[in-house]
Amino acid sequence: MAVLRPASTEEVSEAVKICAEHGVAIVPQGGNTNVCGMTLASRDAVILNLSRMNQIIEVDREGGTITVEAGATMQAVQEAATEAGLLFAPDWGARGSAQVGGAVATNGGGLNVIGYGTTREQVMGLEAVLADGRIWNGMRHHIKDNSGYDLKQLLIGSEGTLGIITRLVFRLHPAPSHRISMMAVLTSTDRLMDALALARQTAGDQLVAFELMNGLGVELALERYPDLKRPFETRADWYVLIQLAGGPTVTEAMEQIFSDGFEQEIFSDGVLANSIAQERNLWEIREQLIPIQYFDCPFAKWDVSVPVSRIMEYLHRARDIASDVDPELVCYAVGHVGDGNIHYNIFLQGRSEAEAERIIPELIRRIDDLIAEMGGSITAEHGVGTAYIERVRRLKSGVEYELMLKLRELFDPNGILNPGKLLPRKG
Amino acid sequence: MAVLRPASTEEVSEAVKICAEHGVAIVPQGGNTNVCGMTLASRDAVILNLSRMNQIIEVDREGGTITVEAGATMQAVQEAATEAGLLFAPDWGARGSAQVGGAVATNGGGLNVIGYGTTREQVMGLEAVLADGRIWNGMRHHIKDNSGYDLKQLLIGSEGTLGIITRLVFRLHPAPSHRISMMAVLTSTDRLMDALALARQTAGDQLVAFELMNGLGVELALERYPDLKRPFETRADWYVLIQLAGGPTVTEAMEQIFSDGFEQEIFSDGVLANSIAQERNLWEIREQLIPIQYFDCPFAKWDVSVPVSRIMEYLHRARDIASDVDPELVCYAVGHVGDGNIHYNIFLQGRSEAEAERIIPELIRRIDDLIAEMGGSITAEHGVGTAYIERVRRLKSGVEYELMLKLRELFDPNGILNPGKLLPRKG
Repeated sequence: MAVLRPASTEEVSEAVKICAEHGVAIVPQGGNTNVCGMTLASRDAVILNLSRMNQIIEVDREGGTITVEAGATMQAVQEAATEAGLLFAPDWGARGSAQVGGAVATNGGGLNVIGYGTTREQVMGLEAVLADGRIWNGMRHHIKDNSGYDLKQLLIGSEGTLGIITRLVFRLHPAPSHRISMMAVLTSTDRLMDALALARQTAGDQLVAFELMNGLGVELALERYPDLKRPFETRADWYVLIQLAGGPTVTEAMEQIFSDGFEQEIFSDGVLANSIAQERNLWEIREQLIPIQYFDCPFAKWDVSVPVSRIMEYLHRARDIASDVDPELVCYAVGHVGDGNIHYNIFLQGRSEAEAERIIPELIRRIDDLIAEMGGSITAEHGVGTAYIERVRRLKSGVEYELMLKLRELFDPNGILNPGKLLPRKG
Repeated sequence: MAVLRPASTEEVSEAVKICAEHGVAIVPQGGNTNVCGMTLASRDAVILNLSRMNQIIEVDREGGTITVEAGATMQAVQEAATEAGLLFAPDWGARGSAQVGGAVATNGGGLNVIGYGTTREQVMGLEAVLADGRIWNGMRHHIKDNSGYDLKQLLIGSEGTLGIITRLVFRLHPAPSHRISMMAVLTSTDRLMDALALARQTAGDQLVAFELMNGLGVELALERYPDLKRPFETRADWYVLIQLAGGPTVTEAMEQIFSDGFEQEIFSDGVLANSIAQERNLWEIREQLIPIQYFDCPFAKWDVSVPVSRIMEYLHRARDIASDVDPELVCYAVGHVGDGNIHYNIFLQGRSEAEAERIIPELIRRIDDLIAEMGGSITAEHGVGTAYIERVRRLKSGVEYELMLKLRELFDPNGILNPGKLLPRKG
C-alpha cells in the first residue's frame, strides 16, 4: 500500500502505532537482499524501509564496539570499523546493499563464520520497536549481562516478526594484520575432512574461511566473467578455498598447510595467493558461484546444515536421491563446509514445467527427510521467509513449533509484523 | 521436601509431570556452586539433582563438538575434550564441582571470556524438560540453523525457570599448543586501558584472559596460603594478569607485551611465567582472591559489567560513593576487566549489625544507580538467583520486565520451575 521511510526510532514507533491501530501489516525492509522472500509485501501491507536510518553513531576503539542505526549497510559498518583499526566480522557478497538490521533480523552467516561466528555472536545490544509501537531499549555496550532472560537473542533471527530492529551495538575484533588464501584441488572427496583437520590443526583460530567449490560452477564463472583468471590448469570436481587471518605468522601457517596437504596426498594441485590481486581473484570466483545466474530452468534449493563431519555423506546421499528421481538432474553444491553448511541446488535442465511439478516436490520431500534424519537444518543461514515455511513446519517437532507460535503470539498478538514470514499467517 | 535424583531425561520428564500434577515446586540443582541463591529450596519444594546424569555421550573430533548429559562436571567435560586434542572453553574456579547444565542455565562467564566468549556461545544444541514434563529436543550438532526462533537461547541463562536442561552439545575449539601468562604492576590505574590495548594489538585473538587483581587481595592470599609464592617484590594497589594461548608464537608475543609495557611505562614491575609451576602459581593467587574467605563482617556485593573502556571510571566513582557513605569501608575489586566485568565487594569491617542495616541499602542503591547510569549490569555473570531479584526489578525498564514476566508465564504458567529465582514468585 505504501512505503514508509522513517528517519528515527521515534518515527518507527509512531508508524507502528498507527498501523497497529488500524490493523495494517508491516513488512520491515533493509537492503532487500534476502533470498527467501522475507521482504515480499502483500497488497494489504506497508513496507517500512530502514534506509534513512543509516548513521554510524559511535566507534569505541578501547571497548571494541560500534553503535549504528539498523539501516547502515554491512560495508559501511565494515569500513567504519577498519578505519578504527578493528574488524566488523560479518561478510557476504551483498555487503554493499545488505543492511545490518536485516543481517541481525536474519542472523546472517556468510564467509567467515568458522573464524568469528554468525551475526548473532557479534550483537552486544539492540533496540527494537515492538508490535504495539513501544520501544525496547536493549542497547548494551558490555559483553556480559546475566540480569534476566536475554531478550535480544529472540529478536535476532526473528525475521521482523517479533519486533523491528532500529539500532545496534556490535562487538568488533582486532583487525588482522595479515590475511592469506589458497585454493586447492582435493585428490578425493573423501579427503575433505582431512583438509579441514589439517587447516584447523595448523592455523588454530586463525582459520577464518573454509569453503567448498564445485568444478562446474568454477567453469561457468570463468566463462561468464572474462576478468576472472583461472587459478591453475587442473580442472576438478571439487576445490577448497581456505583463508587465514591474523599476525605475520599466517603466511608460514598457510605454506605449511599447502606443503603438508600435498605430502599427505590431500591436495593434487593448488595455488597460494601471493598478492592482493590474486587473493581477490580467488574470492571473486567464489562469489560468482551463485548458480541461479547460470541456469534458466526450474530448480529446488536447500541451505543445508549438517554436522561438519558428515558433509560428504550428505553430498553423496543427496546425489543418490537425485539420480534415483531423475538421472539427468544437475546437482550443484557450494558453501561454507567449515561450518557444516552447503548451499545446495538441483537444476532440472531440459525438463518441462509439468515434469518439474512432479519432480520438485519429490526431491524436496526426500532430501528434506535426509537432512532431518542426519540431524541437520534445511535452512542454515538464509532463514525461512516465505520459501521454507511449509517445509520447516513439516520437519519441526510439535513441541518446538508450538513454542514458536506462542512466542509470536506473545510479541505480536494481532499478527501485524511481517505476517506470513517464518510462520504461517495467523488464522 | 525431597531430593530427586533422576538418571535419564525420561525420569526427569516423569518427575516433572508428577510435580506439575500436584503443583509442587521444583528446584533444579547441579553442582550447587552458584553464589546468588539459585538453588535454595523452600520447604514446599523438591530439589531435582542432576548428578547422576553425568555421561560424556560423544566427542566428535572432526566436527569439533562434545555431547554430554547436564550433570557432567565442567572439569570432566574439559578433560574429555583435552583427551581428543580439543578445548572446552568455559572455565572458572569451581570447575571440579560445577556441572555444565548449571553452567548453561546460568550462562557462566569465567576466566577466558575475552578469548572464547561466555558459556552461551559454546552451546550448539540442548535438550530440556519443560514445565509440563514434555521433552524439547534441540540437540543440534551444527553451528548454523535459521529455521525459526532460536529457543535454546531463551533456556540459556534462564536459571531453571523456563525448563530443566538435561543434555547438551557444545562446540569445542582447537586446543592451543602453547600457553603463557604474565603478572605485572600498573604504573598507574590510568594505564589499564593502555595495557589492554597493548595486549590486544600484540596478541590479537590469542589473548584469552586479562584480569585485574587488587593489592589487598594478593597480600591476603599470600598470607593465608603459604604454598603460594610472591611473584615479585613490588607491592602495589593493582596488578594485571594476562594469558595468551595459541601456537608457538605466543611466547614471543608475550615477551613483546612485557617489554613494550615497560618501555611505554605501563608496567613498573612484573613477571613472565616461564614454567608450568610458575604459571599455576599466578592463577592460584588469582583464584584465591575471592574475598569472602578473608572478611568476617557484613558486606555488599556487585558483579559489575560496564563498557570495557569505562572500568576505571567505575572503580573511581564507586569508591567515591563508598567514601562518602563511610570513609572506613573497604572496597575490594577483582575480575575480568578484559570483558568489562569486575566482582566488586564493599566490606563493613568493625561496623555493627545496626550500622550495616543502614549503610548497606544506601551503598546498594547509590552504586546500582551508578552502574545503571553507566549503561552497565549489576550482575554480569553470576545471574540473579534470589540475591539480585529486587535490585534488578528496580533497574530494568518496564517494557523489558514485562516481557520477562510474560515469557515465564508462557513457559511455566503454574510457576513450578525454580519459583522465586530470577523473577519474584508468582502471585
